[in-house]
Amino acid sequence: MSSLPTFADVQAAARRLEGITLRTPLLENARVNAMLGGRLFIKAECLQRTGSFKLRGAYNFLSLMSQADRKKGVVGWSSGNHAQGLAEAARLMGMKATIVMPADAPALKLANTRASGAEIVLHDRVKESREEIGTAIARKTGATIVPPYDHPWILTGQGTAGLEIVEQAKALGVTLDAVAAPCSGGGLSTGIALAVKGLSPATSVHAGEPAGFDDLARSLKSGKKEKNDKLSGSICDALLAPTPGDITFPLAQKLLGPGLVVTDDEVLDAMELAFREFKLVVEPGGAVALAAALTGKLPVKGRTVAVVCSGGNVDHATFSRALSRRSA
Amino acid sequence: MSSLPTFADVQAAARRLEGITLRTPLLENARVNAMLGGRLFIKAECLQRTGSFKLRGAYNFLSLMSQADRKKGVVGWSSGNHAQGLAEAARLMGMKATIVMPADAPALKLANTRASGAEIVLHDRVKESREEIGTAIARKTGATIVPPYDHPWILTGQGTAGLEIVEQAKALGVTLDAVAAPCSGGGLSTGIALAVKGLSPATSVHAGEPAGFDDLARSLKSGKKEKNDKLSGSICDALLAPTPGDITFPLAQKLLGPGLVVTDDEVLDAMELAFREFKLVVEPGGAVALAAALTGKLPVKGRTVAVVCSGGNVDHATFSRALSRRSA
Repeated sequence: MSSLPTFADVQAAARRLEGITLRTPLLENARVNAMLGGRLFIKAECLQRTGSFKLRGAYNFLSLMSQADRKKGVVGWSSGNHAQGLAEAARLMGMKATIVMPADAPALKLANTRASGAEIVLHDRVKESREEIGTAIARKTGATIVPPYDHPWILTGQGTAGLEIVEQAKALGVTLDAVAAPCSGGGLSTGIALAVKGLSPATSVHAGEPAGFDDLARSLKSGKKEKNDKLSGSICDALLAPTPGDITFPLAQKLLGPGLVVTDDEVLDAMELAFREFKLVVEPGGAVALAAALTGKLPVKGRTVAVVCSGGNVDHATFSRALSRRSA
Repeated sequence: MSSLPTFADVQAAARRLEGITLRTPLLENARVNAMLGGRLFIKAECLQRTGSFKLRGAYNFLSLMSQADRKKGVVGWSSGNHAQGLAEAARLMGMKATIVMPADAPALKLANTRASGAEIVLHDRVKESREEIGTAIARKTGATIVPPYDHPWILTGQGTAGLEIVEQAKALGVTLDAVAAPCSGGGLSTGIALAVKGLSPATSVHAGEPAGFDDLARSLKSGKKEKNDKLSGSICDALLAPTPGDITFPLAQKLLGPGLVVTDDEVLDAMELAFREFKLVVEPGGAVALAAALTGKLPVKGRTVAVVCSGGNVDHATFSRALSRRSA
């Protein structure tokens, strides 16, 4: 593992993304701060183009491909947000994209991926390996596989959100005690950790996961890659990767603090608070770090903390379910 | 009317608001642009502190009060967003605020105004004059009345959102053909018009209103201040002012293009699109300018247009009603 990506790689990715990705706002709310007894900032990546942070990594990856490879297109697999980010990055660069998506992905994510002009291949999340299907397509067409998280070009692209968080906090005169981000395979959280540790070494960085899909939290404890028992069954459809990546895990061991694990109900409550106080639409998987802050699993009292709300691609029914948990 | 506020007053307000109000993002969506055949930007003032643009004008007003007057506090009347903006501005400056609010204001707006430490006096929107109640309180306590729109300090504060729109568009290399904002008494739309016309004279500026409460649109046509027939009955609870202001109307005549009038159903559809494509929570009154762009009443085809989504303080039930208008 001699070639783990570095802080400088995140900085280089930021230069490639200039004018492409949105510098999403860092939001704060006086009532929420009073309630928590500290300062909580939300990095609103749900407002990013394609509705999640995933465009950052995908566009960075495609920018680094050779001209010859670009002509043969790209193939990827994703529950939805990487699909949309990759499809849109390919559209922006005039490349062909084929995306392997689970048949039970949210309708909205399927429709949006199609709208970017990508070809979609559906698979059964439990019975079929999306990696095998995607790899077969790549072998047949010569397309380049763009993995969802376990690649230096992907995770350093995602890490650009971390650069922005620290820069935006600094502009407000704030030093962050902790930063937390949602985690599926670990691309976002380790990329952000590279960025945050590079600019602010004393800030701790944490990955949030849904209960039952806390492979990274358990792996960080045991010191070896643990697997989840299940491949589906959380409301957090974006966070169901079975095990940490070969690149993201050593980075996580080096850079991340203890993992944060939240229940589906805590996630729904966080979505409702994001609606009510921050006027943000956050999808379940995008709300796990916020849920950790609101439940005290990531302490905010007396501290200054930033959480990434990483996506907003949520169906009407799921969003209404979150709203119905509280009258007002 | 020798002392109508000017572009320079908006620039001065912007300096007062630095570090206080959020520079809200200017958002764009590739799918929506493709659908409309042009470029549509949303100025997301629903993400502003207190959930609407109203903090801009209120804080600017309080900053311009004398030290002696500040000690006696402020009084205001509002269906909710000005109440929250004024209460929060007073809290930030350590001043006492009393707010006259309609008894049928959304529960959320009442609760949030209370949370900023303001004293609330409820009134009957149809039977009682909020101006009379507020004026009586001011006479008794010596508090300064902070009007919701018809004052130079208020409307130039709101206009700072317009400066940001043009600056943010310029940073993207874009020249705007038109800008539109929601309108109740006209403080936001005329303030924005002052700013936009100052920086980009060829850009047209329009005010959006709900059908049945289109006093400004009719006044601009007839050349004199028209009144609405009703004082309640639209889903746009923030846009029910009965007639244009004495300061806002001459400014509107000088600076605004034809008014834009949309139905409640068109507003609900716009809220649903803001949820689905922009991941924003927009309240009904905040969505009228967006509704005008989506329905073609404000043409986007072949043009570049920015609309202000001015607030996000919406109850669960109303938001769920908007979402239920479309499956997916």
